[in-house]
Amino acid sequence: MAHNVEEFLTVAVDAAKKAGEVIRKGFYETKQVEHKGQVDLVTETDKACEDLIFSHLKEHFPGHKFIGEETTAANGVTELTDEPTWIVDPLDGTTNFVHGFPFVCVSIGLTIGKVPTVGVVYNPIMDELFTGIDGKGSFLNGKPIRVSSQSELVKALLATEVGTKRDQLTVDATTNRINSLLFKVRSLRMSGSCALNLCGIACGRLDLFYELGFGGPWDVAGGAVIVKEAGGALFDPSGGKFDITSQRVAASNPLLKDAFIEALQQAK
Amino acid sequence: MAHNVEEFLTVAVDAAKKAGEVIRKGFYETKQVEHKGQVDLVTETDKACEDLIFSHLKEHFPGHKFIGEETTAANGVTELTDEPTWIVDPLDGTTNFVHGFPFVCVSIGLTIGKVPTVGVVYNPIMDELFTGIDGKGSFLNGKPIRVSSQSELVKALLATEVGTKRDQLTVDATTNRINSLLFKVRSLRMSGSCALNLCGIACGRLDLFYELGFGGPWDVAGGAVIVKEAGGALFDPSGGKFDITSQRVAASNPLLKDAFIEALQQAK
Repeated sequence: MAHNVEEFLTVAVDAAKKAGEVIRKGFYETKQVEHKGQVDLVTETDKACEDLIFSHLKEHFPGHKFIGEETTAANGVTELTDEPTWIVDPLDGTTNFVHGFPFVCVSIGLTIGKVPTVGVVYNPIMDELFTGIDGKGSFLNGKPIRVSSQSELVKALLATEVGTKRDQLTVDATTNRINSLLFKVRSLRMSGSCALNLCGIACGRLDLFYELGFGGPWDVAGGAVIVKEAGGALFDPSGGKFDITSQRVAASNPLLKDAFIEALQQAK
Repeated sequence: MAHNVEEFLTVAVDAAKKAGEVIRKGFYETKQVEHKGQVDLVTETDKACEDLIFSHLKEHFPGHKFIGEETTAANGVTELTDEPTWIVDPLDGTTNFVHGFPFVCVSIGLTIGKVPTVGVVYNPIMDELFTGIDGKGSFLNGKPIRVSSQSELVKALLATEVGTKRDQLTVDATTNRINSLLFKVRSLRMSGSCALNLCGIACGRLDLFYELGFGGPWDVAGGAVIVKEAGGALFDPSGGKFDITSQRVAASNPLLKDAFIEALQQAK
């Protein structure tokens, strides 16, 4: 059966915009916050947005599968199958949301045959809508985007995140990796949103991004197709194939890929 | 002689908005870039904006003194005196500017008797204008701002930067400090703009910020008064008094100051 991916995108954009409106309102208000772990947060907005997005998508695509961060936290992991599956992070950058730091977004991805096929990442604070469809390009607010043309590692802007785990091994590995990479790249940014870092690669604001140990496939499902369709490379930080379920991701333009993988290997 | 600080602010805002217009245009265009050091950049826009800001300020205040990043790079350090002195970073976040990462700003500060008295920090990409006058409060786009009310270090959002020096001692010190602090705070952000990090403290988006070894007083002269007038504490990372000429700064809300200084001391 041929899928109408354009319709999938349109419906996903509508859902993202609706959720974005809720996020934008909450962003400027005092918020009630719960905790999941010491440094991870989930807000009422997060839950409201997941409900809203899933309702909207299910209304249009009742036969599809759904994986969401909040649902998974409540019900455990849902296995990714070959069926059309919507993978949703209703609010990526929850820490930023709580603090009022403007890198927050809705991330919606659709996999078909486990391949990221439709991606929507919407930052409602900066009103930036990133979209991508497998084989049909990536866009920022409707305009085509491309990865950077930077070919020298030493001139490249790197992004990563420090994650939420605070055991000695993880933190040491994190800062040792950063230490090694700092000798090879121009500078380092941490925005607090995995999905927006991927979109930063897609539109060439960032040249290099890696993150290990993020929450789940919802952090990358939307951004994955947006990076690829903008001409970017998406891979495992080890240099292997990108696996959407692995909680590991690296991305760059194709010119920097080999040098970046080498630098990451030397940074272990 | 009594100074008309309101007039000083008005003129500085006009200069910042004019320069911001030049930055905004350049931000979306291909740029010709020179190098100062391996990972530091100065652009034509940087120079054009400094000329524009100094011309505007000198026209209104011919008797004042002027210190600028570009002028200093060309002519050497100008000593800070007790006279009214405009200290200007025409484009803070030059690496972001070159890469199209949206944390760029104009920073204009006025010291009188070496005390930061008027501050203007303008991000033309996000259209955020931060202003402050000694004794008269701080504002974001005309609305009063306050530092966060967070009192627990473990819930605090920290910002810092990795700077531009890439010798082993500096990089090791940078990542060791981050390693130690990660066990104590919620998370870490790096935006690439010292002035905007200070404004992030002032409006409560960030709880903690420190930076060692930035370029000069122009990175902090505008933000200093904005932090103080938003109720924030500005100090040396050692816990000593803030010195605008020291190329070292730390800032937080008053509730977190002591715990932050202790954490910074343990992070050495």
